[in-house]
Amino acid sequence: MAPRRPLLPVTDRTRHRRLREQGSLERADLEAILDAGFVCHLGVVVEGRPLVVPTVYGRDGRQLYLHGSVASRSLAGGAPVCVTVTHVDGLVLARSVFEHGVNYRSAVVHGEARKVTDPDEKLAGLRVLTEHAAPGQWSYARGPNRRELAATTVLALSLEEASVKIRTGPPDDGDGPDAAAGRWAGVLPLTAVWGTPVPDPLLPPDTAVPGHVARREGTRPGSRTGGGIP
Amino acid sequence: MAPRRPLLPVTDRTRHRRLREQGSLERADLEAILDAGFVCHLGVVVEGRPLVVPTVYGRDGRQLYLHGSVASRSLAGGAPVCVTVTHVDGLVLARSVFEHGVNYRSAVVHGEARKVTDPDEKLAGLRVLTEHAAPGQWSYARGPNRRELAATTVLALSLEEASVKIRTGPPDDGDGPDAAAGRWAGVLPLTAVWGTPVPDPLLPPDTAVPGHVARREGTRPGSRTGGGIP
Repeated sequence: MAPRRPLLPVTDRTRHRRLREQGSLERADLEAILDAGFVCHLGVVVEGRPLVVPTVYGRDGRQLYLHGSVASRSLAGGAPVCVTVTHVDGLVLARSVFEHGVNYRSAVVHGEARKVTDPDEKLAGLRVLTEHAAPGQWSYARGPNRRELAATTVLALSLEEASVKIRTGPPDDGDGPDAAAGRWAGVLPLTAVWGTPVPDPLLPPDTAVPGHVARREGTRPGSRTGGGIP
Repeated sequence: MAPRRPLLPVTDRTRHRRLREQGSLERADLEAILDAGFVCHLGVVVEGRPLVVPTVYGRDGRQLYLHGSVASRSLAGGAPVCVTVTHVDGLVLARSVFEHGVNYRSAVVHGEARKVTDPDEKLAGLRVLTEHAAPGQWSYARGPNRRELAATTVLALSLEEASVKIRTGPPDDGDGPDAAAGRWAGVLPLTAVWGTPVPDPLLPPDTAVPGHVARREGTRPGSRTGGGIP
């Protein structure tokens, strides 16, 4: 039977070299990791040296859009970039220091970033960025005017080459000689959760928190319960 | 009066180019950001292209130690690296899409990574790594033996050149023309919290969770309430 979902191509850069973590070649895993976050680490090469900056992103099918102002001076004309999104899910506390580690999900995307210059695509990219981080905000907030659009750098990156790694579960030394020593071992989970919306102090005091924002309290980033276009 | 704390030197790479976020030249801010996390994004240049991988780190004074296995093939002999640590504190939901943003704290450290080869320094570096992420674990878990130590790559990076950026507070358009439209604006906070320790299913059922692990539940990474050597 043919695989239901397309596999990510294996290249020299994405071949998994370590054994402990599990690599995934499923596009669905890549997309789930990207959709569960909204801040990536964008790596570029500046004068032969690496520069890694955090920036917001959004996914539209097989394309990522990135807010590119920080790195824009380094990205004239299809520069090679590496975009990494990591979710830390917990500390793996093993019997031995050597087996300690982290439960995590990460996607490392390689490609050439394209500066979006067409105003329509830029607007569409900003919509993707905004709705990815804050579902429901695009139609709630005032949209960008021509001046604001011109002052914004949006980058596009095709999701063609990516390395996905996922580690879950307990430590790996539960059936080794260290298990006899009686030490506790397990995972200390780490979870990021949206809190109570904090109104701008300059707001009139009776301004209601809109539903698409209020509903996110207590949910995790990327959770679809939190908002979105109904 | 002379400043009590040393400032970080301003170089071409660390000069702040954007206005919205606030740069900091305080070493204390750099150290606080590094101490509040334990996973960084390590950027290296591989065959002229950027590679950004997540890895664990620990700080010892003005030195960072990194678990370097993932990127080690690219780091023979003092390769330039960029180590970025980012904490996302909330979404800034403004009246206009243009003013949307993220409250965050980030440290971008530039330097040359040194592969630690001396066994004593490697052991010390691993202790820093372990205690940074899991205070109290170094003396609780079995320490690395010679074979494990040899199989571990530890990188050292001096904290000499770094760019620190911090954004806090409400959106910036509370006193502009968009404020009249009556839209809600503010911040949706995001917080990462340690959960309830999950025991390895292979543990004898009566194995107690040690205090330095149990105490972290409900605290944030980097919080000193969570453990540490008493």
